[in-house]
This record gives sequence, C-alpha cells and structure tokens, in this order.
Amino acid sequence: MSESLHQLKTRLARISRLRQAAALLGWDQQTYMPPGAAAARAEQSATLSQLIHEMFVGEETGRLLEKAVAETQGVDPDSDDARLLAVLRRDYDRATRLPTELVTEIARHTALAQEVWQRARANSDFAAFAPALEKMLNLIRQEAEYLGYEQHPYNALLEGYEPGARQAEVAAMFAEMKPHLVALTQAIAASKNPIDDRLLYGHFPIERQRELTLHVVQSLGYDLQRGRQDEAAHPFCSDFSRDDVRITTRFSPEYLAQALYASLHEAGHAMYEQGSPPEYEATPLAGAASLGVHESQSRLWENLVGRSRPFCAYLFPQLQQTFPDQFGKADVEAYYRAINKVEPSLIRVEADEVTYNLHILLRFELECDLLTGQLTVSDLPEAWNARMKAYLGVTPPDDAHGVLQDIHWAIGLVGYFPTYTIGNLLSAQLWHAARQALPDLDAQIARGEFAPLLGWLRQNVHRYGRKYLPGELAVKATGEPLTSRYYVDYLTAKFRDLYSL
Amino acid sequence: MSESLHQLKTRLARISRLRQAAALLGWDQQTYMPPGAAAARAEQSATLSQLIHEMFVGEETGRLLEKAVAETQGVDPDSDDARLLAVLRRDYDRATRLPTELVTEIARHTALAQEVWQRARANSDFAAFAPALEKMLNLIRQEAEYLGYEQHPYNALLEGYEPGARQAEVAAMFAEMKPHLVALTQAIAASKNPIDDRLLYGHFPIERQRELTLHVVQSLGYDLQRGRQDEAAHPFCSDFSRDDVRITTRFSPEYLAQALYASLHEAGHAMYEQGSPPEYEATPLAGAASLGVHESQSRLWENLVGRSRPFCAYLFPQLQQTFPDQFGKADVEAYYRAINKVEPSLIRVEADEVTYNLHILLRFELECDLLTGQLTVSDLPEAWNARMKAYLGVTPPDDAHGVLQDIHWAIGLVGYFPTYTIGNLLSAQLWHAARQALPDLDAQIARGEFAPLLGWLRQNVHRYGRKYLPGELAVKATGEPLTSRYYVDYLTAKFRDLYSL
Repeated sequence: MSESLHQLKTRLARISRLRQAAALLGWDQQTYMPPGAAAARAEQSATLSQLIHEMFVGEETGRLLEKAVAETQGVDPDSDDARLLAVLRRDYDRATRLPTELVTEIARHTALAQEVWQRARANSDFAAFAPALEKMLNLIRQEAEYLGYEQHPYNALLEGYEPGARQAEVAAMFAEMKPHLVALTQAIAASKNPIDDRLLYGHFPIERQRELTLHVVQSLGYDLQRGRQDEAAHPFCSDFSRDDVRITTRFSPEYLAQALYASLHEAGHAMYEQGSPPEYEATPLAGAASLGVHESQSRLWENLVGRSRPFCAYLFPQLQQTFPDQFGKADVEAYYRAINKVEPSLIRVEADEVTYNLHILLRFELECDLLTGQLTVSDLPEAWNARMKAYLGVTPPDDAHGVLQDIHWAIGLVGYFPTYTIGNLLSAQLWHAARQALPDLDAQIARGEFAPLLGWLRQNVHRYGRKYLPGELAVKATGEPLTSRYYVDYLTAKFRDLYSL
Repeated sequence: MSESLHQLKTRLARISRLRQAAALLGWDQQTYMPPGAAAARAEQSATLSQLIHEMFVGEETGRLLEKAVAETQGVDPDSDDARLLAVLRRDYDRATRLPTELVTEIARHTALAQEVWQRARANSDFAAFAPALEKMLNLIRQEAEYLGYEQHPYNALLEGYEPGARQAEVAAMFAEMKPHLVALTQAIAASKNPIDDRLLYGHFPIERQRELTLHVVQSLGYDLQRGRQDEAAHPFCSDFSRDDVRITTRFSPEYLAQALYASLHEAGHAMYEQGSPPEYEATPLAGAASLGVHESQSRLWENLVGRSRPFCAYLFPQLQQTFPDQFGKADVEAYYRAINKVEPSLIRVEADEVTYNLHILLRFELECDLLTGQLTVSDLPEAWNARMKAYLGVTPPDDAHGVLQDIHWAIGLVGYFPTYTIGNLLSAQLWHAARQALPDLDAQIARGEFAPLLGWLRQNVHRYGRKYLPGELAVKATGEPLTSRYYVDYLTAKFRDLYSL
C-alpha cells in the first residue's frame, strides 16, 4: 500500500472512531440520559463535533489525500483503494467548501430554530416560526452557493443526502408517479370493499410487545450480539461500528402496529449497517451508500416483507399466541387487510404505502419553490394546505397538523425529504430483482426463513458499503437505473387485490 | 482574569467535555453495549483517550499553565484560581511523564481485558484471564517507572488515586487496625448472642426491588433529574458532568440486601458528584478530592447511615409494605441485627463492616508483591486462597469466588484498593464531626430527613471539589488529620452492643 494512503487511513480511522463516540452521545440523549443533563450533553456533542470537523478538514487530510492519489495512479479504478479515495475526495471537497463562519452560524441558528419550531408547533402558530424559517432558508441558500451546483440550488443540498441525484430527475420521477398515486388513492376511497382495521386496536401489554418485536427482528436476521432494541420518543437506528448497531422503537399499549412496524423498519436499517464489510470498518467506505439506499432497506423489510401475505402467515400464529384475547378468533387475512389499510391522512409518519409519497412530493415541491424564491415563507401554509387538498383530499385543521409537523426544515434539513421516496422506489426495484433470484421467496418468508433474502441483500447491496454511488448500486443490484415502475406496479397490483378494484 | 488563564480554562473545558464523552463509552460498555461490540469499543475508547491525553499533555497546555501562573502571582494562594493552577500542575506533571503510546496501549488493553475477565469469571477459569492480567501488570509496572516514585513502585500508582498517600503509611495504618479487627472478629465468632440473618433471604421480585431502591436513594437526596439507576454486573457510579451522575446496582431475587446496600453505596458516590459546585464544571476543580474521599461518602451513606438503628426505623415500614410476606411479622430490631451480621466471607463487596478491611489488606499485600515480582501471576490464586484462610478463616471453592471476583485488576486499577479502607476511616471521622454539628441527627434520620446531613456534607466536603488534597480536606472538615481511631471506636461500640461483648 502507498505510504500516504496508509497514513491517510490511520487518520481517517481516528476520525471515524470519534464519530462513533459522538453517535453514542446522540443515542444516549434519546434513550437513557436524565433530563437535567441536556446542557452538559450539548457541550459534549459540540466539542466532539468541532474536533472531528477540524481533524477532517485539516490541511493534513488534504495533503495526504493528494499524495495518496498521486501514489496510486494506475491502480484499478474499481478497486477499494481507488474508490475510497474518490469517496473521500467527494466528502472532503464538500466539507472544505463551507466557510467555518457559515457552519457555525447554521449550527447556532439550528439550535435556536428548533426551539422556536417546538413552541410554534405546540401553539400551532406558524407566524411565530416564520422568521426563523426565513433566516434558515437564507443560510441554506448561502450554503448552496458555497457548495456550488448546476441548474438548481436544490442540487447542492440533495447531493449531501443522495450523492449523484438531481433535482430534475427527482421532479421527473414524481411527475411520472403522481397520476398513478392520485388515481389509486381515489379508486381506493371509492372502493366497495373497504378495510376495517379495528383488529389492530385493543390491549397489548408492553412487556409482551417488547419480547415479540425483539423475537421478530431477530428472526429476520438482526444480530443481537451486535445490536439491541431500546425505547425512544421517535424510533431511530444508530450505529457505532458494524458491530454495534442499535434500534429503538415506541410502544403504544392500545395499538400494536406502531411498535411492530417501527421495529421492522429500524431493523431494516440496522441489518444494512451490520452487513457493512468488516474490512471497510472505520474507513470512508463503511456504512450506507446514501439515505435513499438506507431507506430502501428499512422499507423493504417494513413493507415489501412485513406487510405481505407470506409474512403475515409467518407472524400471525405468534400474534395469536402472544395476544390470544385480541387475535385468538381472528384470521390471518383480516390481519393482512388491517395492516394495509389506505387512508389519506394529515401526518407523513403515519401514512400508508399508497399516500406516503404524496406527502413527500408536496414537501419537495415546496422546498424547491422556497429555495428559488418562487414561494415566500408567508405564503407557505396556504401552499401546503392547497396541495394537501389537491393530492390527498384532506385539509389540516391547523398548522401543527400541517406545515409545522416535521422537524426537518427547523434543523436545516432541506433537500432531505426526497430520499424517503427514492428509498421506496428502490425497495420495490430490489424486491423485484430478489424475487427473480429467489423464486421460492414467498414460501421461505411464510416459513420464517429470511436468510435467503438477507443473503441476497448482503450480496447485492450491503457488501458494497459506500463504494458505489446510489445510481451505480441500483444498476449493479437490479440491472437498471432507479425507476418508479416497480414501485407503481407493486402498489397497483397489491391494492387492486386488497380493495377489489 | 489573566488572559492566559482564560485561554487555559477554555482548553481545559474542551478536554473535560471529551473526558465526559469517554466516560459515557465506559458506562455504556458496562450497561447496554452488545457483547459483539467489544473490539470496536476498545478502538473508540483508545482513540478518545489518546486524543485527550495528547491535548492535555500538549505543549500548549504547559505554555498556558506557565503563563497563567506568572500572570497570577500575588493572587490569594487559597483562591479557586490559585488552587486550580496547583491541581493542574499536579495532574499535568503526572500526565506528561507517560508516553502517549503507553497510555493508548493501556486503554486498549483495558477494554479487551475486561471482556476476558468477564468470561473468565463466568467460567471460574483463572487460566483464561492470566495472560491478560500478566500483560496488564507489565503495562502498569512501566507506568510506575515512567511516573517515578520513592521507596516502592506502589507509591507511583497510589498517588493517582489518593494524592498525598504513601504505601508505607497505608501499611502502617493496616498494622494499627489489624489487631483490633482480628480481635473483634474473633470475639464476635465466640459470642453467645449470634445474629440470625435468615430474615434477609426469601423471595424479592426484582421489579419491586427496583422501585424500592430508587425511592430510597431519591429520599436520601440523589437527584434523578440529574441521574439514573441501571443494572451492571459490578455496581458503580459514573459521571458525565455534575448534572449527569449515574449509578448501577445488581439485583438478587433471593437476597434483598445486595441491591439495597449497593444502591445506598453508589448513591453516596453520586451525591458527592452532584454536589460538585456548578462553577467548577469542566475545570480541574470539578469532582472528588480522591477515591478515598469518594469512598468516605459511599460508605457513610451505606453503613454509618444505612446500617444504623435510626435508618432501620425509617426504612423498615417501607420494607414491610413492599415485601409483606417477608417482613410483615418481623420487627425492626431483628432487621437491624440481620443487616449487621458479621461473618467472614469470600466476596469483598458483600463483606460486613468488621471484616471488609481484611479483604482490602489481602489485595494490598498481593498488589505490592505482584508489582515487585515477589509474586507471579500463576501463583496468585494460591496466594489469594492462603491469605483468605489466614485472615478470614475461609477458602474460596473456586476462583470466581476468589481471585476473579473484582474487576479492578482487569481494568488496570492497581494501587486502588487501599482507597476503600481510607474511605472507611474517613467516613467514621466525618460521621463523628457531623454528629457534633447536628445533635438531632439520629432523630432526623429516623424521620427520613436526610437534608441536614447531606447539607453538612455539601458544606464541608462536596463544595470543595478537588480544591484541597484529601489530607487538607480531612483537617478542614473534621479538625484533624485522617486517623483510624474513629473507625475502630465506631466498630467496637456498635458490635459490642450487637453481639453483647
């Protein structure tokens, strides 16, 4: 190995270990930290973040990168080392383009705007949040200018979450899907065979839910030797190396589906991280190709697997045993129907498979228009509500259930939302490819044999870590670039059947 | 404030926040970390330790220290700033003597050896632990040589836990106490009024123990807004700022006293850290004067309070309510006698007040001999068992109940054990002083009013943080230097009464 590359890897490993330590601070903050520790934790996190940033953008990183690139001329451009240097080049250039003052200003305003947003949401008072959002958008526009872009400032931001993705492509994808989604939603609303999901509501002791969800995610292939499940207000997955990938869930004693599908979702994220190659550990190649690819894994296990008939056939006897009063006399088809009920609703995180992407489309359109100034902050609530009505047929009773519902903009995450839809599309595209490779997949799932599917994902997605761009990875895994076709086909077939359309 | 002092404090605050983050890595490792994460955690801890060490021993620290000392000439030598610089001088000189490579190696080996010890203890397999201990002792010997010492390498290590203490003084202290302890132990063994503690054994559902212990430590004054209690194999207290001080305990479903007195003990530690002055936060003056002073707080609450008649009067009605089958028909005096039963036993952490320090004496002697090479690791189990027989009259059935019982050596804590005895002595000396200041103390405790006692400790111990050396602190709080007299007097009076001697 080139001596500079070796030194570079040593430096990056240190930075990586510090990032893992910083991630533990975050995990702890959302799980076990006592409330009085908030101020101290903010200092700890800020200190570690600043140090990590200083080490990463330091001249020594750039110097070693240049030397390592020079010393590895002629190396196979598809080798791990060549790809590592390419990934690092992308990360380093992006990190060094932003002036420290702007990074500091965004960090400071993020803390402030988050507080303002929380109060504004609690009071459903958008006007109280508007100035903070206005300022955040100004900072984000500056960020986009420093980062540089072609065609649309959105591209500069999107690149940070979904490398290689472009605003115009995302817009085209949505344009393609939108008529299908809207038509399907309307057809379902008019269906003569509506779904009754009262079966999912009742009394589900939390201790039993805890055992059940843990058993289920373990049976999928989530390795509890290298992971664990805790509780948090907002379920998430957090990793501190491929050998320590933790999930959280949230239990509702009256509604089983909340914890169960949150656990499936987060376990999907976690199995991706656990599948990152050991040899990539603590290098820029470790982890996930993008947020979209990450979401493809969580959604695949949550929806393509978790809301399928074969999975219900596997799961339902366990549900009957665990909650006999609730499910003892029910049948599996009733359960399958209940967990697939479609109902246009106000809140994105509670949306079903059919309407979910309409929530994302709305945010994507608004973000693009806000960035370019075609939409002003003061007109935002009206624009939100108009689109909710047009796409989903519902109108928020207040801004807390509308434009104020998500934290993303308050903490500067503009350009992030489309990764949810990219994840959904890719999940169906991967599913299609996996089914062709595993003709017996349905029967395997019905028997609780998830190893073949996980093995296919390990082989075609997980083992590449960050080596390939999401676009490259889609082609490698499925033979074609990302398309909305498989997702639309999947939804159409599934819900025509469910709603007798 | 001197400009250099200001810069120095800023630098030290950053280092302090990183130390807090490192402490969270340690807490997590002993509470929630999945087993497969051990190697990654070792890297994270090593990286952070190395970085902290580099920042602390960096030339910039020394330069600022020199300038700040020069700029604060003429300042009251007892002022916080002057004392801060004195404490820093002590810490800095000690830290700069150790090469970074050795510090990193010790941190890495600590994480691994801890895992090895846990498995070895579970299998009672000392041979499996021996190589890790051998390597640790070699590292520790190197550490002592780099640190420098007079007379005995033990002094170099002891200084790190108990500034100002000396091996010869500790040996003399033990020599002074030993005849009293042995005589008392023998007199108790021959007593015509032995204690029956079967009352403490039965069926104690863990969930109820959890609630009870949490309630009791909270009533003492342990602030759960700034703390929490979890479970760990070896109970401990860990702090990540004065506003985040966590304890752990260990529940036995058959034996109530284990968790209860472990919780009292750790809460004693935790209240000391929670009482560290806010203005000392993230400075070298934050925290505890020494491990011995720390232990004086835990033992004071566990024993001087927790095993007293007044505390039993407060606690017993709660025990009767929580475990009616067990205590419903018992009386408080029987409980008081039971929790004060003296019985030479195998496990230090379960030892009674009379025999406890004989366990420490044994470890102190073995450590001294291991360090100088008079004792080899392979001969250690035999030496352990021989001394157990000689001092306590008992022989461990296996190494899990003998030489493998404590975590200390596995994590490099050599020279640490005597601080337990120093803590015991100081706890009785502080108790004597507190009783003089609070003539109504017994009645307050019997009523569950712990605020006056905690207030006295806050005022006379906690509020000084690390400002004074343990020896200075003893004089400030009690009017005289540390002596074994109060402890021997306390034990003699208490157990003569209990055993009708």
